[in-house]
Amino acid sequence: VGELDLIRWIRSRIPGRRAGVIVDSGDDAALVRVGRERVLFKTDSVIDGVHFDSRTARPEEIGHKALARPLSDLAAMGGVPTFGVVALLCPRTAREPWLKRIMTGMERTARAFDTAIVGGDLKSHPGKLAIAVALLGRVAGRPFRRSGARPGDAIGVTGALGGSILGKHLRFTPRIREARLLGRTLSIHSMIDISDGLATDLAHLCEESGVGAILEEADLPLSAAARRLSRRDGQSPLHHALSDGEDYELLFTVPARERSRLRHPIGRIDREPGIRLRRADGRVEPLRIRGWEHRFER
Amino acid sequence: VGELDLIRWIRSRIPGRRAGVIVDSGDDAALVRVGRERVLFKTDSVIDGVHFDSRTARPEEIGHKALARPLSDLAAMGGVPTFGVVALLCPRTAREPWLKRIMTGMERTARAFDTAIVGGDLKSHPGKLAIAVALLGRVAGRPFRRSGARPGDAIGVTGALGGSILGKHLRFTPRIREARLLGRTLSIHSMIDISDGLATDLAHLCEESGVGAILEEADLPLSAAARRLSRRDGQSPLHHALSDGEDYELLFTVPARERSRLRHPIGRIDREPGIRLRRADGRVEPLRIRGWEHRFER
Repeated sequence: VGELDLIRWIRSRIPGRRAGVIVDSGDDAALVRVGRERVLFKTDSVIDGVHFDSRTARPEEIGHKALARPLSDLAAMGGVPTFGVVALLCPRTAREPWLKRIMTGMERTARAFDTAIVGGDLKSHPGKLAIAVALLGRVAGRPFRRSGARPGDAIGVTGALGGSILGKHLRFTPRIREARLLGRTLSIHSMIDISDGLATDLAHLCEESGVGAILEEADLPLSAAARRLSRRDGQSPLHHALSDGEDYELLFTVPARERSRLRHPIGRIDREPGIRLRRADGRVEPLRIRGWEHRFER
Repeated sequence: VGELDLIRWIRSRIPGRRAGVIVDSGDDAALVRVGRERVLFKTDSVIDGVHFDSRTARPEEIGHKALARPLSDLAAMGGVPTFGVVALLCPRTAREPWLKRIMTGMERTARAFDTAIVGGDLKSHPGKLAIAVALLGRVAGRPFRRSGARPGDAIGVTGALGGSILGKHLRFTPRIREARLLGRTLSIHSMIDISDGLATDLAHLCEESGVGAILEEADLPLSAAARRLSRRDGQSPLHHALSDGEDYELLFTVPARERSRLRHPIGRIDREPGIRLRRADGRVEPLRIRGWEHRFER
């Protein structure tokens, strides 16, 4: 089954404008109207063998990741989490101490982000561990969207990229606080979290905004992990920074005049569709985007 | 792993009273405060081989059931659904037409209950199909609780019981409208939906209320399916009505004076803990409760 095709099909069947839906599922989280309030609403799931490997991941890290992923989506909307519910699909052979450590990891992260887990659903089954988390959140003022990037915007990221497979994908900090700070100090035009890789997620943002982008090789913040992985697999650190998934940093755009205030300015938004990379030697080349999916296949 | 033990452990770690939590996970759904509004929040999941059998169930029925189960939980709180998000864990071998028919079944039910599906998460994995749904809802006035039953209350149900395995478990109608109607015409003291079986769910309700109950054999509405199943397996229709899970009817209590207005009065709440059954011949015997879990094990 082609996941993206099916997602498009599902999306195409959702009426574009429905009473109470302010932002629909096309963004990092939905924003809906509840009486006089607006509520961010998001679900995400992680599966053993796909998003973590239960043979090597610490159980606390598994619980953390299951919650931190949708937290990162709320961050990308400029939101703050409030409540969560958790559906736990447990292998029938799972041992209780292991499951408790998973829940302890999740609780710790919930506390760190002031999120109250108010409901759960625990089912045992013959398959592997899967955890689906649904989160509610609030957003003060205007939510950040994928669709607001404008030609000339400077592009920024919240941290160094690449090589998250070496550990960060299990231990990253969702950028809730950073997004709020950015919103207070800059004129955010658009934002997305980097879960599928810089190149892919920038392509998503550009597509939603009807624009293109040029990235500057010289400006891309390469993580130490990207360099370590490069020494191991022979791919360049740049390749890892562009292609690796699960960095969970925020990617955003601001007006050109605010570029100098970005910690990591990495390029600019362009009228011409597509993503291009200006190499260190000045050559500009189109970036071939490869989607990122399923890392830990056994 | 002992599911109930783990659920108790998780619950024991959730602080009893948290800011904004009006009803916690101990009831059919959580009720939380969002600004000036109150929101019902619930998650539930279904798994192939546990809650349905993908070899025999129509795909539309699978989609229906995944959504109708948490709808039934909102009904038991006297709530009305508003928004939902869906996490779909697909077997890698799943065919797209089959998945589309599942989603079509879910959409149809969503429309029938005015629920907007505003977000989704689709992952393919090596295991079987699992669907986790999270729902938001509203409740006008006081939510129905499991904990409100009082000695002397009459006990009612919204429909005939037993034998849902023969088909109703895939096709039931969540009692959203019935619950609202009951709330307008009667003084509902307590309510729960019957997912684990009448005896087990009545025990839950009694435990939360600190009471016991006596059921009247002569008054229990036995479904045609309970009789059919009885002819097949030799267990009595009564046994099926008491023990079978997944009827998704509502079980509720009202003051004794309203007993005559119940369509299916089936017993009364008692000060003495435990569930008892008054047989047709007048004998009263304690009911041995057996929990219900996992029906379609392969």
